[in-house]
Amino acid sequence: MTTSFFTRTEPVAFAGEASTDPLAFRFYDKDRMVMGKRMEEHLRFSVAYWHSFTWPGGDPFGGETFLRPWMHGGDELSQAKAKAEVAFEMFRLLDVPFFAFHDVDVAPEGASLTESNSNLAVITDIFAEKMQSAKVKLLWGTANLFSNRRYMAGAATNPDPDVFAYACGQVKAAIDATHKLNGANFVCWGGREGYETLLNTDMKKELDQLGRFLSMLVDYKHKIGFSGPILIEPKPKEPTKHQYDYDTATVYGFLERYGLTKDVKLNLEQNHAILAGHSFEHEVKLAYALGIFGSLDVNRGDDLLGWDTDQFAMDAKEMALVFHEMLKHGGFSTGGLNFDAKIRRQSIEPDDLLIAHVASMDTCARGLLAAEKMLADGALTGPLAERYAGWSGEEGQAMASGGRTLEAIAARAEGLDPQPRSGRQELLEGIVNRYV
Amino acid sequence: MTTSFFTRTEPVAFAGEASTDPLAFRFYDKDRMVMGKRMEEHLRFSVAYWHSFTWPGGDPFGGETFLRPWMHGGDELSQAKAKAEVAFEMFRLLDVPFFAFHDVDVAPEGASLTESNSNLAVITDIFAEKMQSAKVKLLWGTANLFSNRRYMAGAATNPDPDVFAYACGQVKAAIDATHKLNGANFVCWGGREGYETLLNTDMKKELDQLGRFLSMLVDYKHKIGFSGPILIEPKPKEPTKHQYDYDTATVYGFLERYGLTKDVKLNLEQNHAILAGHSFEHEVKLAYALGIFGSLDVNRGDDLLGWDTDQFAMDAKEMALVFHEMLKHGGFSTGGLNFDAKIRRQSIEPDDLLIAHVASMDTCARGLLAAEKMLADGALTGPLAERYAGWSGEEGQAMASGGRTLEAIAARAEGLDPQPRSGRQELLEGIVNRYV
Amino acid sequence: MTTSFFTRTEPVAFAGEASTDPLAFRFYDKDRMVMGKRMEEHLRFSVAYWHSFTWPGGDPFGGETFLRPWMHGGDELSQAKAKAEVAFEMFRLLDVPFFAFHDVDVAPEGASLTESNSNLAVITDIFAEKMQSAKVKLLWGTANLFSNRRYMAGAATNPDPDVFAYACGQVKAAIDATHKLNGANFVCWGGREGYETLLNTDMKKELDQLGRFLSMLVDYKHKIGFSGPILIEPKPKEPTKHQYDYDTATVYGFLERYGLTKDVKLNLEQNHAILAGHSFEHEVKLAYALGIFGSLDVNRGDDLLGWDTDQFAMDAKEMALVFHEMLKHGGFSTGGLNFDAKIRRQSIEPDDLLIAHVASMDTCARGLLAAEKMLADGALTGPLAERYAGWSGEEGQAMASGGRTLEAIAARAEGLDPQPRSGRQELLEGIVNRYV
Amino acid sequence: MTTSFFTRTEPVAFAGEASTDPLAFRFYDKDRMVMGKRMEEHLRFSVAYWHSFTWPGGDPFGGETFLRPWMHGGDELSQAKAKAEVAFEMFRLLDVPFFAFHDVDVAPEGASLTESNSNLAVITDIFAEKMQSAKVKLLWGTANLFSNRRYMAGAATNPDPDVFAYACGQVKAAIDATHKLNGANFVCWGGREGYETLLNTDMKKELDQLGRFLSMLVDYKHKIGFSGPILIEPKPKEPTKHQYDYDTATVYGFLERYGLTKDVKLNLEQNHAILAGHSFEHEVKLAYALGIFGSLDVNRGDDLLGWDTDQFAMDAKEMALVFHEMLKHGGFSTGGLNFDAKIRRQSIEPDDLLIAHVASMDTCARGLLAAEKMLADGALTGPLAERYAGWSGEEGQAMASGGRTLEAIAARAEGLDPQPRSGRQELLEGIVNRYV
Repeated sequence: MTTSFFTRTEPVAFAGEASTDPLAFRFYDKDRMVMGKRMEEHLRFSVAYWHSFTWPGGDPFGGETFLRPWMHGGDELSQAKAKAEVAFEMFRLLDVPFFAFHDVDVAPEGASLTESNSNLAVITDIFAEKMQSAKVKLLWGTANLFSNRRYMAGAATNPDPDVFAYACGQVKAAIDATHKLNGANFVCWGGREGYETLLNTDMKKELDQLGRFLSMLVDYKHKIGFSGPILIEPKPKEPTKHQYDYDTATVYGFLERYGLTKDVKLNLEQNHAILAGHSFEHEVKLAYALGIFGSLDVNRGDDLLGWDTDQFAMDAKEMALVFHEMLKHGGFSTGGLNFDAKIRRQSIEPDDLLIAHVASMDTCARGLLAAEKMLADGALTGPLAERYAGWSGEEGQAMASGGRTLEAIAARAEGLDPQPRSGRQELLEGIVNRYV
Repeated sequence: MTTSFFTRTEPVAFAGEASTDPLAFRFYDKDRMVMGKRMEEHLRFSVAYWHSFTWPGGDPFGGETFLRPWMHGGDELSQAKAKAEVAFEMFRLLDVPFFAFHDVDVAPEGASLTESNSNLAVITDIFAEKMQSAKVKLLWGTANLFSNRRYMAGAATNPDPDVFAYACGQVKAAIDATHKLNGANFVCWGGREGYETLLNTDMKKELDQLGRFLSMLVDYKHKIGFSGPILIEPKPKEPTKHQYDYDTATVYGFLERYGLTKDVKLNLEQNHAILAGHSFEHEVKLAYALGIFGSLDVNRGDDLLGWDTDQFAMDAKEMALVFHEMLKHGGFSTGGLNFDAKIRRQSIEPDDLLIAHVASMDTCARGLLAAEKMLADGALTGPLAERYAGWSGEEGQAMASGGRTLEAIAARAEGLDPQPRSGRQELLEGIVNRYV
Repeated sequence: MTTSFFTRTEPVAFAGEASTDPLAFRFYDKDRMVMGKRMEEHLRFSVAYWHSFTWPGGDPFGGETFLRPWMHGGDELSQAKAKAEVAFEMFRLLDVPFFAFHDVDVAPEGASLTESNSNLAVITDIFAEKMQSAKVKLLWGTANLFSNRRYMAGAATNPDPDVFAYACGQVKAAIDATHKLNGANFVCWGGREGYETLLNTDMKKELDQLGRFLSMLVDYKHKIGFSGPILIEPKPKEPTKHQYDYDTATVYGFLERYGLTKDVKLNLEQNHAILAGHSFEHEVKLAYALGIFGSLDVNRGDDLLGWDTDQFAMDAKEMALVFHEMLKHGGFSTGGLNFDAKIRRQSIEPDDLLIAHVASMDTCARGLLAAEKMLADGALTGPLAERYAGWSGEEGQAMASGGRTLEAIAARAEGLDPQPRSGRQELLEGIVNRYV
Repeated sequence: MTTSFFTRTEPVAFAGEASTDPLAFRFYDKDRMVMGKRMEEHLRFSVAYWHSFTWPGGDPFGGETFLRPWMHGGDELSQAKAKAEVAFEMFRLLDVPFFAFHDVDVAPEGASLTESNSNLAVITDIFAEKMQSAKVKLLWGTANLFSNRRYMAGAATNPDPDVFAYACGQVKAAIDATHKLNGANFVCWGGREGYETLLNTDMKKELDQLGRFLSMLVDYKHKIGFSGPILIEPKPKEPTKHQYDYDTATVYGFLERYGLTKDVKLNLEQNHAILAGHSFEHEVKLAYALGIFGSLDVNRGDDLLGWDTDQFAMDAKEMALVFHEMLKHGGFSTGGLNFDAKIRRQSIEPDDLLIAHVASMDTCARGLLAAEKMLADGALTGPLAERYAGWSGEEGQAMASGGRTLEAIAARAEGLDPQPRSGRQELLEGIVNRYV
């Protein structure tokens, strides 16, 4: 079956900017050097198992549209194996260095935790074997603690301690599998860690439960020698009315409260950022400022809609500003650009899957090249340094470093009459437009 | 002039639920006992100087509508005195225990910081004298660090250290004045501490500047023996595109980062809450959970609009849920219910000012009484305790308190098959409706 | 099976305001007279088949939670019959006068249109028989033209004319069934009549297709002697990015364009209203002003979320303002209050279904009683008439009725200096609070 | 004074894509031919008097930042003359073909309508003289019926008929002035034609008043021989909670209702579009589909903010899609691209005014060139035609044109089983990215 899912057999390749082939790269030239690293090493693209291979195309008002062969007929484990064939074939065709998955994406849930864990082991053994010959590596694994009805009121934050325990069982198996496959990170998206109504919710207790859960996971990670970070993925709402991992700033406060900033970092997403009222660039900058930047789920939301649309990122300017910040910090360490993006449910052709990834990879590459050039020219960094130059003076440094008291500064201020200077926003916007 | 601003001379009084007089209280019966305290001691109402006496009724598309006599003719200091007469007359007519102000609300800005501070002293001396005979006390004072053009790019977060210094001078004078008037708290609303565009903003540097500013203010507060807390008022946007004090969770992380959770608490506002995507109740619950609840700015926003409308609170159910949480914690300590609310710009009659406050005070009183009754009946607290009862068992306690490892819990989970239980949201919503 | 789905056997009854039984009415006293009609005749409650009997409790991040017996085991037609038993049992227990359904809610889709229509006939024959002895009547029927993958790009607005034809076949069968059951109205919700992206959409052509489709439906309705109106249900977004039936104003323009205002009216919904940026009251008032008010889907959205939550209406004040407008126009003619509302997916107990309806019916009844009283007192209508009184003067009437030219009025205006008068918003808000 | 406001004396000129000068055009090459017309004739840029010369830089939280010399010192009429000098100097420097103004932008309001009209005549006489030698023409004039407190409750929709009359007086003078200056259009933005609260609003009456007002204006326009259209500018909210001219679809229904579609067209704005929940492209496409496209106010809003930010348009892709639609219809007739955009209040340097316009003009030019190329290649139009090709068949045409009944189509549908086809959204998004 899977041998014929994609008609194409050759990996998508770089063809230059003039190409009009939707299955060729115009900007993503994986071996091109960008600030000392190959483009592929910068972008670290990852395909997401769930959207591409597990989602049937349904939405709240309609069912399956894709009719994927591995979702019909056969027993579940056989289907999972067939799905894996297609997945690895797509990784090869897109020539991506990474993929990512939830436990339930790759293996069927069993009638018990034991059986689920056993299924997971069967499939991840197959993965391990495939990965010996394939290029693709595992960017991260994670546990789906939100789809099964037992988690309807949360996993770690469930009012029932037995559900908490079950979640522990599932997450342990998932990090074990991730470790077995040499995953670079382990992700915890707080699926239903939040509330539908405050009327039935003890928020303080639930936050403490979540803190405990993560602390145990961090302990366990060290115990098994998993060297990558645990990544939390901020999201403000959906599926719950309020998700505890609201945004970067909220998660930072949470990690500080439970002493987890050292081991836990963030996996940021554009669509989650805008649902929280922030730009993607804001979340990335803030995560760096707070020392908790980890990885990116790259996609885009619709600015006019209030839910997670998870569309493929297609705005090079937005990506350029994100990469501009990242390049200032040296780019990814363990993280990568995971396509937490789904083709529209009307994009029912197999090739739509490839085309969407290619177009979005090219968008990212274009953004990266623009960022490189802006940095080389000091296009934004120059004016920025100039704007804050006053703080490098003696008095500025003294005030910033704690060398002055309020009353001393206040006394000095009596003689001051500081004049505002232009913020030059339109000038800077015009400059960015020159690069994209 | 001011003697004739309000036609009424008698303070508004309690007249019982059957009254149809818009200038009588139907629920606010200040001496009625609620859980051991007089209603007035619970609600601690405060009138805001800025909206009621300083705002001329303008908006971005039109100018003054109110034509307040103290805004026309005469020199600025005389006007400020005339304004003070009206203000204290209104405090008396509304029979409120508190008021609140910014420095520039009460006294004109001078040509220099020295002159501004001098003007402030003149007026606050008048206040001090009036307060000897009046009932009203000062809930809090604050400095306006956002209206003057020197602050267009922020005060503590300004790229120019001289503006930072000027802000120090202004805030010192404001807390001195607050201390002189025995203010119960000192507020720092981060007016323009945020950014318009990330293209010209060094967010990390600005956050550090803000941390430094507050740390110096805390030091100074201790030095002068000001016993009340410093209160930060979260707001996500407006006037800037992004305000650093986004919401409760964000400010908590900020305070943790700079070691300020002990001395700095929150002044929460309904309208700011919903602009950040949260309910008022959420912000209050979270502030208690994190130990940083301080005071409330009571108003309401329009759920369908994206800016701060600062309307008078008129929803008793919303207030009941807020008070329900507060009463569980014993209610306000130094905080109060400050009317950071403005009458609509079409409400141009002097009596509109009184009517709006009376209607909103009554809404709050009605909410307080409903909350008292819900607590007495255990209407919400009973079901809540029952929902989380499992965590009081031996294993629940052990897991919550750190007495179990992930792998131990995971091993035990293999035998579990926890079943979900109804969240009973509609039942609880129906119960709340019984009380309001 | 169904005999034991609900444990209760007695219909829910009125027990008075003091009752604390969640399965008793506190305000809904069906025989109480309100402005000349029985309360039941005013409110015309209807239960929606889809949310209550067809939705399994899933959301985009998780599957079934309810585990309804009629969704498991047995052939589809038998399941549909079992479901009907439960449905009519619930209609009886809630003592509601109406219900409403989509074709696919009640009967399984077949392998062909012919088979689907045949299944529909089988079940609606059963309905017809049950309705002979039951109290419940059909408020409206409708066709689901959005769930099947053939409709993924719209039904009437599909780029493929064969899909348009198929939709004609389905809607004909649905209105035939509705007519057979003496339905009072026939509804067309524009499920996927909209677009995901303008890049692949010919908006003008699609609008013309939709106009044609409705025109043919109106012709057919007259041909078969169906006397009720066709109702369109405005919704701005979801499932598509943009729905053509955006809001009341949009649909009005559409109906004018295609000459349909006489036969087509609106079915308005609170949650759709707020997603479009309007209050429920606004949509109702505007529909009356434009002469196209028809019926209501009563529910509520979450003001802080950007998708359709379809929660049960629980805000008596909101309903009071809606009923206030409706009572001015004599209330419903063919329309009713259809509960297009779903219990939360955590409300998994059968009784949650009953409790939610009861609490919301009571909320509506409370609103109706408040509206009756406000009207009797002229609480809002009095001040309104006074505010516009000037237009009843000679010159006002002349200007309003076309008896003056711009230049004549302009000439007269040279001598005018009109002064603004207070809008008294806070006064009016306080008045409303006295009634709810 | 004005001679030294701008330091530059030479008009900004085209310098080619490689230029890095913020005061040179990189794409806007006014004489370059685009589909048979000069670029300048396509884009028809217009500078807005209000934002650029009348706004002092204030916002709801702070006052003036710009300190324009013509806003300080001197009598009001002299200031207005000085302002005009600067304005015409800027028109010359930007080399734009058009400008636009409100009455109160250019001349001071007097103590009476007569005096205001007289002031307007003085200044517009000066304009007339200047325009004899200048290149710039008047795109449109309009009357400001929202800033003065007399209009706080609306102009045409005011509850007081004398205010309606006053508005007639003002709008007559404004269209007279526009006619005198050979303005190409006359605009009516519904400033405060809306409501703050439904509690005090008779919506039907107010809509009828607005219909009457516009009908009289249309009559008058014909009487004086003003050949351009009246343009309404849709906006959903701000300053009022609800503006009657909500969006394109709403205004279309309104114009149909009052028989005004022939003489009244739309002036669309990006920022207003997104506040109403639509893309700019949507509004433009819909206006063309409904036959009421007129002109554009070009700016951009902030997708994350809920108010009108009126920033300069800087997104070439967004403009390309707008121009793509416009070019299909031959582009503007009387309309143009009016910069209803304001520099940020921190952009206090005179050059910021020029830089902003230049950067945004270039963005538009870049978009126009991309649109031209897409059309030439059939990049989007080709796939679109293919997608709807079925409707060109015999049966499709018959159904679309009214040649079939519902029952006939339904009968035929019994034999159909139409299969969905891919919407190819990601492919099309990738194609667009190739052009911008």
